[in-house]
Amino acid sequence: MEIHGGDLYRNHVKLDFSININPIGVPQSVKDAMYQAIETCNRYPDIMAEHLTKSVSDTYNIPSEYLLFGNGSSELFMAVVHGIKPKKTVIPVPSFYGYEYAARALDGEIVYHKMTPENEFCLTSSFFSVLSQDVELLFIANPNNPTGNMIQKEKIKKILDYCKERKIYVVLDECFVEFCDGDYSMLPDIEAYENLILVRAFTKIFSIPGVRLGYLVCSNQKVMQKIKRHIPEWNLSCFAQAAGCACCAFAKQTDFIKNTVEYIKKERQFLEDAFLQKGFRVFHSDANFLLIFHETPLYERLLDRGILIRDCSNFRGLGKGYYRIAIKNRAENEILLKAIGEL
Amino acid sequence: MEIHGGDLYRNHVKLDFSININPIGVPQSVKDAMYQAIETCNRYPDIMAEHLTKSVSDTYNIPSEYLLFGNGSSELFMAVVHGIKPKKTVIPVPSFYGYEYAARALDGEIVYHKMTPENEFCLTSSFFSVLSQDVELLFIANPNNPTGNMIQKEKIKKILDYCKERKIYVVLDECFVEFCDGDYSMLPDIEAYENLILVRAFTKIFSIPGVRLGYLVCSNQKVMQKIKRHIPEWNLSCFAQAAGCACCAFAKQTDFIKNTVEYIKKERQFLEDAFLQKGFRVFHSDANFLLIFHETPLYERLLDRGILIRDCSNFRGLGKGYYRIAIKNRAENEILLKAIGEL
Repeated sequence: MEIHGGDLYRNHVKLDFSININPIGVPQSVKDAMYQAIETCNRYPDIMAEHLTKSVSDTYNIPSEYLLFGNGSSELFMAVVHGIKPKKTVIPVPSFYGYEYAARALDGEIVYHKMTPENEFCLTSSFFSVLSQDVELLFIANPNNPTGNMIQKEKIKKILDYCKERKIYVVLDECFVEFCDGDYSMLPDIEAYENLILVRAFTKIFSIPGVRLGYLVCSNQKVMQKIKRHIPEWNLSCFAQAAGCACCAFAKQTDFIKNTVEYIKKERQFLEDAFLQKGFRVFHSDANFLLIFHETPLYERLLDRGILIRDCSNFRGLGKGYYRIAIKNRAENEILLKAIGEL
Repeated sequence: MEIHGGDLYRNHVKLDFSININPIGVPQSVKDAMYQAIETCNRYPDIMAEHLTKSVSDTYNIPSEYLLFGNGSSELFMAVVHGIKPKKTVIPVPSFYGYEYAARALDGEIVYHKMTPENEFCLTSSFFSVLSQDVELLFIANPNNPTGNMIQKEKIKKILDYCKERKIYVVLDECFVEFCDGDYSMLPDIEAYENLILVRAFTKIFSIPGVRLGYLVCSNQKVMQKIKRHIPEWNLSCFAQAAGCACCAFAKQTDFIKNTVEYIKKERQFLEDAFLQKGFRVFHSDANFLLIFHETPLYERLLDRGILIRDCSNFRGLGKGYYRIAIKNRAENEILLKAIGEL
C-alpha cells in the first residue's frame, strides 16, 4: 500500500477519490499560461521569481519579504527542517505524512501526539503537556488531513502563544484552508508571531499538483534566512512561475474561491448524509474531503471497479476501516456512492 | 552584477550569450510532450518517476538503482551536501557558483583551489596536496565552467583513485559533457568508484533550463540512501517527467547529440578564430562556450545593444576582463562579433 494517495501510476484507475484537489478543475487561464510557458522553457526561470512574488504579495496582501516559494510545499517542509534543525519535533497524528518525511531527514527526535476518535481527532488541552521545553518545532495542519476538521482561531492563537513563549517554531500548513467556509487563516496575524511559519499551496485549490508550487509566509527575517539557505537555486520551473501568476490573477478577478467554497459545502453535505445513511461513521470536516469509518473492506473492492480511495490504515494514529474520500463533482460522487452501495 | 548568467528578467536582452544551452534548440517532440503534460497537471506526478527512470536507464545504460532525479542539478548538489555533511569541501576555481552555494548550506569548511591562467586553468599536480585526509567532498566539473576545458580520463581516474583511498566523495558534474567530442564521461566506470557521484542534466543539451531536470548516478547504495533522504517528495513536475522521457527517446532515435557535437565544434572554431583575430585571449574549450579575456570593457556596452554576455569578474579565481560567451548559431555569433568589432 502506498504512503500517499493518488497512485494512478501503479493502479488501474478511472475515478480518483484519493487526492484532494478542487473538483472545479484547473482554470483555463492557468492552462493557457502553461501553454505559453513552453515557449520560454529554453531560458532559465527567473531565479528571483519577481512576477510571482509580486502577484502573491498583491493578491494575498503579504509583504514580499515574508514570502518564500517552493517546488511544492514538500520542498518547503524539508528546507524548514534543515533551517531550524530541531532536536525535537512534535507532530499531532493522524496527519499528513509529509511532515514526518521532512523531519526524518535529520536525526532529531520526533514525538507523535495522538488525537483520538473519541475526541473527533481534535487537539485537546492535553496537547500542551507534549510541548515541553526541549521541543523546537511543531507541525500543524489546519484544516487537518485526513480528518478535514478546523482548529478555531482562538485555539490556534493559544497554541502559537504557548509556543512563542517556549521558542517553539510552528509550521502551520494551510494548504486546504481556502476550501473552508470562514475566516480561519492566520495570514492576517503573521506579524504577531515571530515563531509562525505558514505554508500554503497552489496545488489543491487550483488543482495543479503536477506543477509543484507552494509558498511559506514568515515575518521573522532571521528564520527566513535560515530556511532560504536550504532552497536550491532555480527551484521554480517556468511552468510553476507562469501558473502561479495566472492563479493569482484568476483568484483576484473572479469568484473562483468563493464558488469553490460553496460547491464543496454542498457536495460535502451530500456525501456526508449519504455515508451516514449507509451506516458509516463520518468525521466532521470543513475541507474538501471526508474521513469515514466502516468495517467493510472498501479499498480493493472499489479499486476493482476503477475507483481509487485513500485507505487510511497506514496513517499513524489510524487503522483498518478508515478511508479518506475527496469531494468531487455530483456525478462522480454518485458513482462512488452507487459502487459502495453495490458492495 | 548577477551571480549567474541569463538574467533576462532585469535586463533588456535581445540576444543572450550568457547561458550555455544547445543552439539547435528544444526538440519539437519534447515541446509536444510538455503540451500533453498540461492535461495531466491535475494529478500528482509519479512520486517514483517510473517511466523517466526506465527511459534514462535504457538510453544511457545505467542500472535504475544507480539513478536519482532532481528538480535541476541544483537540487541534487544541495541533497548531496546534506547527505554527506562534509566537514571540509574542496572546490577548484574558477568554476560554477552552484557548488559553493550548495556547500554553504552547511557550516563545513570550504577550500577553494585556484587554477591559474598560466596553466590554462587546468588542474596541475599541486592539486593533490589540497586533498588532505580531512577533506570529505570534492566538486569537479568536467568540462569545467566557465573555461570549457576537459580533464582527460586518465587524470580523472587518478583523482578518483586518490580520493577513493582517502574516503573523499567526488561530485563529478558532467552537465556539459554531451557537447564534447570524445569519450570523456565517467559513466561507464561508475561501478569502479564507490566514491563517485556523477551529476548530469537535461538542461543544457536539450535547451530546457526552464523545466528543471537533472539526475545523479552513483553505484554506492549506502550513499544513495543518505542523499535520497534529503530529496523532497514529488520533486519532479509532470513537465520534467514528460520532457525527460521525450528527450531520451529523441536522443535514442536521432543523431541529435552527434549533430550537436559537430555543430558546436564548427561554430566554436569560428568564434575562436574571430576572437583571436580581434586580439582576445581565448582559452581552450571542448564545450559549447568560450572563456575569453580582453581589457576593453564589454559587458555594459554590449548590453546597451541588447546583447547579454557573462561578465566573469565575479567568478572566484577570475577578475576583470574575463567573459564567457555561449556558442550560438552562425547568424547570432556574427551579430556578436560585429557588435564587438564596432565597440
